[in-house]
Amino acid sequence: VTAPGLVSLVGAGPGDPELLTLRAVDRLQRADAVLYDALVDRASLRYAPRARWEFVGKRAGRPSIAQATIERLLIRRALRGERVVRLKSGDPFLFGRGGEEALALAAAGVPCEIVPGVSSALAGPALADIPVTHRGLSSSLVVVSGHAERAYAEVLGSLQPGAATVVVLMGLAARAHIAALLLARGWPAQTPAAVLLSASTAAAQRWTGALIDLRACALPDQHPGAPGLLVVGASVSIAAQLQSLREAAPQSAASQGG
Amino acid sequence: VTAPGLVSLVGAGPGDPELLTLRAVDRLQRADAVLYDALVDRASLRYAPRARWEFVGKRAGRPSIAQATIERLLIRRALRGERVVRLKSGDPFLFGRGGEEALALAAAGVPCEIVPGVSSALAGPALADIPVTHRGLSSSLVVVSGHAERAYAEVLGSLQPGAATVVVLMGLAARAHIAALLLARGWPAQTPAAVLLSASTAAAQRWTGALIDLRACALPDQHPGAPGLLVVGASVSIAAQLQSLREAAPQSAASQGG
Repeated sequence: VTAPGLVSLVGAGPGDPELLTLRAVDRLQRADAVLYDALVDRASLRYAPRARWEFVGKRAGRPSIAQATIERLLIRRALRGERVVRLKSGDPFLFGRGGEEALALAAAGVPCEIVPGVSSALAGPALADIPVTHRGLSSSLVVVSGHAERAYAEVLGSLQPGAATVVVLMGLAARAHIAALLLARGWPAQTPAAVLLSASTAAAQRWTGALIDLRACALPDQHPGAPGLLVVGASVSIAAQLQSLREAAPQSAASQGG
Repeated sequence: VTAPGLVSLVGAGPGDPELLTLRAVDRLQRADAVLYDALVDRASLRYAPRARWEFVGKRAGRPSIAQATIERLLIRRALRGERVVRLKSGDPFLFGRGGEEALALAAAGVPCEIVPGVSSALAGPALADIPVTHRGLSSSLVVVSGHAERAYAEVLGSLQPGAATVVVLMGLAARAHIAALLLARGWPAQTPAAVLLSASTAAAQRWTGALIDLRACALPDQHPGAPGLLVVGASVSIAAQLQSLREAAPQSAASQGG
């Protein structure tokens, strides 16, 4: 009987392969098989020279592979004794269905480990100069999914206006509804807001404006199919503050090569 | 005139150096100076062979270096043309004061970049087998700081009971108060809860139980000075489910070496 291998549920980070962790790279290097998602940058796969790469992600307009099928694939490969990496966008335990996969693997007697990743809920805003907390502006963070309407309505419908920075992952299609919910709850119309597309990749795009204008933001329509997140809260204003300070400072980044 | 160097505000992750990102390691390798915090594992510094290492963190019972002093140090070194890494525990833009440092640097005309890190708000629970979201149990996440009482009281006092998984960073001293707030708001006494100490390090310790018992958890007193976080919400129960599945499965992790 072959001893079962190991399945590593690995967070790939927001997209840029430089945001992989050292442990993620180690697991890729030793992998026999890598099952990866739609939002994972294929450049990450160069770290897995020995592995078979299997795409198990969803693509817009095409039927996605069922979760149960992914779990069966992971179990079958591990029971053959293989080292398997399940490479997930962001962090495997924040909207990554990592918990479901861990349960399925444990039930099948397959050893499994979690390798945390850089979540786009933090890295997306950070790479757009937006701290999700900032002394005097926001000291708490709320993360919801634009794909979980009942859940985000429950959170955003009860949360005190302005009490936290709100990040909405997979938030593009829901942006009009989210904005309406927050405005109805009493958030000021001029609350700073941002729409961030393809964070951390070469295709990254950002829009900042007021909560009241979030609905009309045209960026998602100009870049159809791009993944995106929303940020709402006072600390979004730091991005503009940084921008104007940099423009005002004579010896700024522009002279870096001088 | 020397062109200013570059300050990289780098997230070191929750502690374990294997959770550094590739970009963090690159910036450490090229650094002339590294200013690091109390919770950063010194093993991370082996990636900065050329750099002077300067400890600027807080230690229990000793006066900490003022934020303004840290900002002055960063600016002075960068204006000498040095490459400076400001190495922060977790992510620099989630309770990391990274926004304040970015503003001070921009005002001084010093180029600055953010290198996002793995936050202990996600990695802490993940490494303890706790997904912060899990289909059917929790689809939202709230992160607060136990050091920001007014802020967490505003969030936890308004949030609908059970609407999100609650993670409290720096939460040990506040645990009785947090538990009382949630119970008063209507969270069920038996809501699963966890206390996680020194997440991702060799000294890691965990306790899981019911919200009503959070106050009485003795773990923090048994490990004085250890950093810790709290997790409250239904998805905490996944850790126990995984544990019992692993114990029930005959060909489980224990036989991995066979």
